Amino acid sequence: MKIAVVAPSCTLKPEAAEAVAAIARARGDVDLAIHPQCFLSDGHFAGHDEARLMALREVMADESIDAVWFARGGYGSNRIAEAAAAELPAAAKRKTYLGYSDAGFLLAAFDKAGLMVAHGPMVQDVVREGGEAAVHRALDWLVNRDEGALDAGVRFGQRTMAFNLTVLSNLLGTAIEPDFSGADLLIEDVAEHEYRIDRAMFHVTGSPAIRRIASLRMGRMSEIPENDPVFGSDAESIVREWCGRSGIVFGGIADIGHDAANRIVPFDLARN
Amino acid sequence: MKIAVVAPSCTLKPEAAEAVAAIARARGDVDLAIHPQCFLSDGHFAGHDEARLMALREVMADESIDAVWFARGGYGSNRIAEAAAAELPAAAKRKTYLGYSDAGFLLAAFDKAGLMVAHGPMVQDVVREGGEAAVHRALDWLVNRDEGALDAGVRFGQRTMAFNLTVLSNLLGTAIEPDFSGADLLIEDVAEHEYRIDRAMFHVTGSPAIRRIASLRMGRMSEIPENDPVFGSDAESIVREWCGRSGIVFGGIADIGHDAANRIVPFDLARN
Repeated sequence: MKIAVVAPSCTLKPEAAEAVAAIARARGDVDLAIHPQCFLSDGHFAGHDEARLMALREVMADESIDAVWFARGGYGSNRIAEAAAAELPAAAKRKTYLGYSDAGFLLAAFDKAGLMVAHGPMVQDVVREGGEAAVHRALDWLVNRDEGALDAGVRFGQRTMAFNLTVLSNLLGTAIEPDFSGADLLIEDVAEHEYRIDRAMFHVTGSPAIRRIASLRMGRMSEIPENDPVFGSDAESIVREWCGRSGIVFGGIADIGHDAANRIVPFDLARN
Repeated sequence: MKIAVVAPSCTLKPEAAEAVAAIARARGDVDLAIHPQCFLSDGHFAGHDEARLMALREVMADESIDAVWFARGGYGSNRIAEAAAAELPAAAKRKTYLGYSDAGFLLAAFDKAGLMVAHGPMVQDVVREGGEAAVHRALDWLVNRDEGALDAGVRFGQRTMAFNLTVLSNLLGTAIEPDFSGADLLIEDVAEHEYRIDRAMFHVTGSPAIRRIASLRMGRMSEIPENDPVFGSDAESIVREWCGRSGIVFGGIADIGHDAANRIVPFDLARN
């Protein structure tokens, strides 16, 4: 099993790359190819748009690579997502793509294009507390299709999609919006004020495309900055309220988030 | 001329209300009716949704009121905008509605409903440096239709729409999205990181509805927090780039923003 790592958003920390490479060597079941593009830096990004796109397209087209693992989030994959999903080579269709947070723009574009995508831990998560477990979970899924790595609600025959709420809000209506019809939609977010969560929920649940989902489940909303004044309701109440207002079924809690416990959500097990 | 002030978002500061009431008295050409709802407080908001909606609907339906002036922004008008624009009484159609920032949700819903809306200073702007001038500009427009109060690009026969960029991003695709076709679209924002401006521009310019505008002009993007790392391009470059990528004509600069110089942009002079 050969897995390529590219960074479509921000630069990967070398110490994270080294730690994950060491884990992969110790496992012995995976050949991890960390693309040098991961360490480029151009302003906010891991290299200019063209450099990030070229590295991604290169590993997508490589017949020897079984999966593409996004190095980390941050911001920037939206800038190349539409181009990355265009005119796909056959080899791109035989791979799994794994990431979350900002990489959700790619999950959306690739899911729309019919590729196998999964929401789950990325390489740089190794630096989190307990991050080794997240890395093993990612590899257990990519290498062994270990169902123990999945969110407990994921099941065959039911589309399950997972996104960072803010990323989801920012891709609705664009060329990379996937088909949400009938899906169990999982959301999570990090470092957004309650008023921003409320506003994003207004936006997302106000979308006719989103109203076609089967249900919505809430992952962890972490590191919420203090609202000034006190907002008046917490994240779960906010999510439940907007589900109620929009006629969307609130399906409960999801085991995803910006943390080491982040479980894996393949969008469509039938594609795996 | 009688103008009602309501607060569909956050609570109005009493000292701002007093200062603007004094200005109105000194002018002698306007009867300013500051609704007591402006001073309610319920968590983040100037009263519960029902209280804000009821006050707004009350002044909209009041035959004696010529214009509705939003007290301030913050967050929350989206929560009542669709309901506020539903089943409009005849009296609501004979008024002008003025505000900006979070009040953009109402400008959108009301413009969609055929009402006369304008983007411009609000009551609480009086506390800004030079804020008295902003208040006079707002009143000069509401009371006298003084064209000197307008952004220089506004002209009869050309729809001109103005929004806070983040608010605009969060209303696209919802039930309150107005018709942007052929409009000159002006944007401004405050206190958003460059990566958030870039992401919002991706989202907004990626919308087919927005791509039907005639041109986009950029107002002031102020109080931009430091990007970590340095983003690599400034707000104007970001806006120009996304216009270029999406085939939208960049029309130059607009004289709007979160400041005392904020000029008035009636969406449709033909409705005035």
